[in-house]
Amino acid sequence: MASKHVKKIVTPASEIAPADQPAPVAKEPKKAVRRATAETMAKAQRSISVSEFFAKNRHLLGFDNPRKALLTTVKEAIDNSLDACEEAGILPVVEITVGQLGETHFKVIVRDNGPGIVRQQIPHIFGRLLYGSKFHRLRMSRGQQGIGISAAGMYGLLTTGKPVKITSRTGPRSQAQYYELQIDTRNNRPDIIKQAQVEWDQPQGTQVEIELEARYQKGRASVDDYLQQTAVANPHVTLIYNAPDGRVERYEAASKHLPPQPKEIRPHPQGVELGLLIKMLQETKAKRISQFLCSEFSRVSPRVAQEILATAGVDASATPKRLGGEDAQRIYQAIQKTKIMAPATDCVVPIGKDQLVAGLKQVVNAEFYAAVSRSPAVYRGNPFIIEAALAYGKAPAEPAPVGEPSVEQADEGEEERSNGESLARLIRFANRVPLLYQQSACATCKAVVNLNWKAYNLPQSRGALPSGDLTIVVHMASVWVPFTSESKEAIASYPEILKELRLALQEIGRQLGLHLRRSAKLQHELKKRSYIEKYIPAIGEALKDILELKEKDVERTCENLKTVLERSRSM
Amino acid sequence: MASKHVKKIVTPASEIAPADQPAPVAKEPKKAVRRATAETMAKAQRSISVSEFFAKNRHLLGFDNPRKALLTTVKEAIDNSLDACEEAGILPVVEITVGQLGETHFKVIVRDNGPGIVRQQIPHIFGRLLYGSKFHRLRMSRGQQGIGISAAGMYGLLTTGKPVKITSRTGPRSQAQYYELQIDTRNNRPDIIKQAQVEWDQPQGTQVEIELEARYQKGRASVDDYLQQTAVANPHVTLIYNAPDGRVERYEAASKHLPPQPKEIRPHPQGVELGLLIKMLQETKAKRISQFLCSEFSRVSPRVAQEILATAGVDASATPKRLGGEDAQRIYQAIQKTKIMAPATDCVVPIGKDQLVAGLKQVVNAEFYAAVSRSPAVYRGNPFIIEAALAYGKAPAEPAPVGEPSVEQADEGEEERSNGESLARLIRFANRVPLLYQQSACATCKAVVNLNWKAYNLPQSRGALPSGDLTIVVHMASVWVPFTSESKEAIASYPEILKELRLALQEIGRQLGLHLRRSAKLQHELKKRSYIEKYIPAIGEALKDILELKEKDVERTCENLKTVLERSRSM
Repeated sequence: MASKHVKKIVTPASEIAPADQPAPVAKEPKKAVRRATAETMAKAQRSISVSEFFAKNRHLLGFDNPRKALLTTVKEAIDNSLDACEEAGILPVVEITVGQLGETHFKVIVRDNGPGIVRQQIPHIFGRLLYGSKFHRLRMSRGQQGIGISAAGMYGLLTTGKPVKITSRTGPRSQAQYYELQIDTRNNRPDIIKQAQVEWDQPQGTQVEIELEARYQKGRASVDDYLQQTAVANPHVTLIYNAPDGRVERYEAASKHLPPQPKEIRPHPQGVELGLLIKMLQETKAKRISQFLCSEFSRVSPRVAQEILATAGVDASATPKRLGGEDAQRIYQAIQKTKIMAPATDCVVPIGKDQLVAGLKQVVNAEFYAAVSRSPAVYRGNPFIIEAALAYGKAPAEPAPVGEPSVEQADEGEEERSNGESLARLIRFANRVPLLYQQSACATCKAVVNLNWKAYNLPQSRGALPSGDLTIVVHMASVWVPFTSESKEAIASYPEILKELRLALQEIGRQLGLHLRRSAKLQHELKKRSYIEKYIPAIGEALKDILELKEKDVERTCENLKTVLERSRSM
Repeated sequence: MASKHVKKIVTPASEIAPADQPAPVAKEPKKAVRRATAETMAKAQRSISVSEFFAKNRHLLGFDNPRKALLTTVKEAIDNSLDACEEAGILPVVEITVGQLGETHFKVIVRDNGPGIVRQQIPHIFGRLLYGSKFHRLRMSRGQQGIGISAAGMYGLLTTGKPVKITSRTGPRSQAQYYELQIDTRNNRPDIIKQAQVEWDQPQGTQVEIELEARYQKGRASVDDYLQQTAVANPHVTLIYNAPDGRVERYEAASKHLPPQPKEIRPHPQGVELGLLIKMLQETKAKRISQFLCSEFSRVSPRVAQEILATAGVDASATPKRLGGEDAQRIYQAIQKTKIMAPATDCVVPIGKDQLVAGLKQVVNAEFYAAVSRSPAVYRGNPFIIEAALAYGKAPAEPAPVGEPSVEQADEGEEERSNGESLARLIRFANRVPLLYQQSACATCKAVVNLNWKAYNLPQSRGALPSGDLTIVVHMASVWVPFTSESKEAIASYPEILKELRLALQEIGRQLGLHLRRSAKLQHELKKRSYIEKYIPAIGEALKDILELKEKDVERTCENLKTVLERSRSM
């Protein structure tokens, strides 16, 4: 059977040597090199551990250069702290310390008041890539891959040889646990260097300490920038930042309320691919196919399940594991044809229109603000929400807000340089996490660049951001944000995401256009009025001469003329 | 000891509740949600298999949308075929068949005349992510990660439920082996669905067949585009392409010589980080530290090893495994201080200046060409070469070269759209493989955008590619190309790479600038000459009247005048 099949797909290929001769070996212009054969090649084949892979490709994880490495380390630790606090219903208080030990040798300490980590899990969470609780669920959170913090520890180990140090306590009645860990990259497993129960002056929480090769520099895409933007998008978070230059900065929580807790959802049937459906059928614990559909997916009621199975011509009492590929395919097609309610949307929590503008006001002091928070949409079965806001123009001069990094500062490592005319500034968030690198690879940036801002009265060169005194904020909230790399710096351009971004930007763009046209009109009217007031007396003088009017008549005529002319304005 | 250390780094934090009270729980505005604790969270923690990770993140592998999925599948199969043929010293002949089975259901078959794969390795190579021979060595090749072809098979399985089918034969005296494989994503292991010895009308080679959900569309970033560019950068390769619309296209090898075979190298000591050095010290088979340095690194002679060890103050006969972290650090620092020859460069094989221009001529028919192939440079210890070429202006009209995709065609999925003014076209290669997606995320694109092309007389908007009738080709050849994601679509922006790119682009830019200034000058001169010829007779007539000259004198005067005026040109 297999042989028959193979024969069928083979077409005679005249350029290939006949079966009794080996393939032609190319002429060697120089001395002979030992050539590989299938056998010599087989000897070199072996598996690659995921940590070896990422150690060699550390730029995939955000460790391309020392400045970015510092930011990524801080970011991964804070992401974990905030996720843990929120999941446990605790208002997060996170203290970040960045200390300089040598020219390019830094120590990062991040400490939170979260729920702590049970002892047995600490080595896995910090000493193993692809380990965590967030990957196998559909729930909005900052972390999702189980890579970040272990990768930061691995980078630290790689560049300084120093282990990661963790202290964690799950509550006032528990002892604090202390670990020193090194990731064993060949096996992707934690090596425990030291473990102890310790005294800790904190009732609950986790502290992680990483030494690494890094560079500290303020400005765009710096740790300072990151913390400021985190505070903007997370008004319920208190951040205390001990900077390497001795400064202590505090971002106090503006809100005493946690955002609503996002709900975990099951996958939507129409977002599941055939191959995954087959796998789910094989792995389910459900005894009947109807039960399988209702329990493993969201939005499938018994009635909907019945409809799907009727369309597919599959018996509702069939055992999922016994269904063949044909049946699976019919069920898959029936799912696509059945009208099923859109995914539940309480799994995605937006920042909100007002909060976005409030945040933006902390960053720029502008003459005009606009914001939109769109309704949830779906890509590959994953609900998501796009929010956007903009600030335009300069408000009457006021002192710059505290902590605002100067735009003029050096920006090595990031692509967007400021030289000459001013392009719009784009501030990006994914699940409330600021995205500071790879802007041009991000779907949000593509959506901004591809929009025709000239239609909203803003100058824009082709293939570039619009110009002018414009700051745009975009937020994507989703149960699963598709990033273009493991470093989570840019959002992948799924068509559904690009569409929502476009619609959101169009909406705030239209508001801005309206504002700009209104102010242009106002300018025009004011100019017109000043002309009227300037020239009417002259006209009066002329009329006086021509019509031989008296001074009193002149005054009256001028008043009339002014009224008529001003009435002609369409304001 | 541990406890003491912990105590030291803890600073009193007034915002955290005293040790006898639990952390404050946020007020719940609405109904209570079950909050997580360290214990409930621990239950959800588990490891994530690398195939699960990439199945969920399939956009990281180049499977974001059906059109790109088709290209990525073809690309991964061809990469493997070409690498295998070249390593075995065989001039590659690769036949690609893309067949349409349904509206979005395609079958891709790629067959080569390579060395074949030994039976036992087939399931691992095609049914397991992170498995291969290219990751653990430093040698220039197209594939490097051991992910690509298995990922294509995984995507096919996920979207169609169909296994990957492989036929391979290692020589005319061996039987062909046939496999049908499915990747078991939970365990990242191959499930063998079928295995057989089969008759095959081909003496040697490998054929892979994948069914997948896809979309076929010509134009930019299409399979057709990819094959054309592959032919351009690989003149020793013959490609036969059976397109879904029934067309058969052949790209015949223009050269009967394989490019020189790149040599495998050991790491350069100055590209190795401290953590890696420590790991190498622990894992080496060398008995003495001096032997370790000479045998595990390139460019370390016994004399250099002696110098390093003297600087570090480490005994040359010390056992590597017994050296402590302090010793390792001193050796690491000594390596940085020692003058060590740059890495060998015969491990990197450029395409070459002439070949680049020849390739470019197949794509555009221009008035001016320039090219540069730079000397090897090094990033993170990895040697690399940057090459660049450009074509400018339109040559006198000729029919467009066959197979050149029309720029006007739809280009969904790719960011660069053509609407209105024409931006320069950028063609990118990494180790002779065309890069068709994520242009704006690529170091090559950043280098082009960041260069000031106005200095070379080309119009350019800020933050954009230069405008005009310009095609730029860039090639990076390296023992390890750092890509921004596993889909290998864009090169990461390491500072050393950006620098080499800038230097290469400056060089061809200067040549273009010179050409443009010369032609502007020529234009100017021609115009001047035509003025002279137009007005001299009139001047002659005027002189005749004023000076009352004879006709003969007028002629002579005009000749003199013309000579004097033309001599004044600085040509």
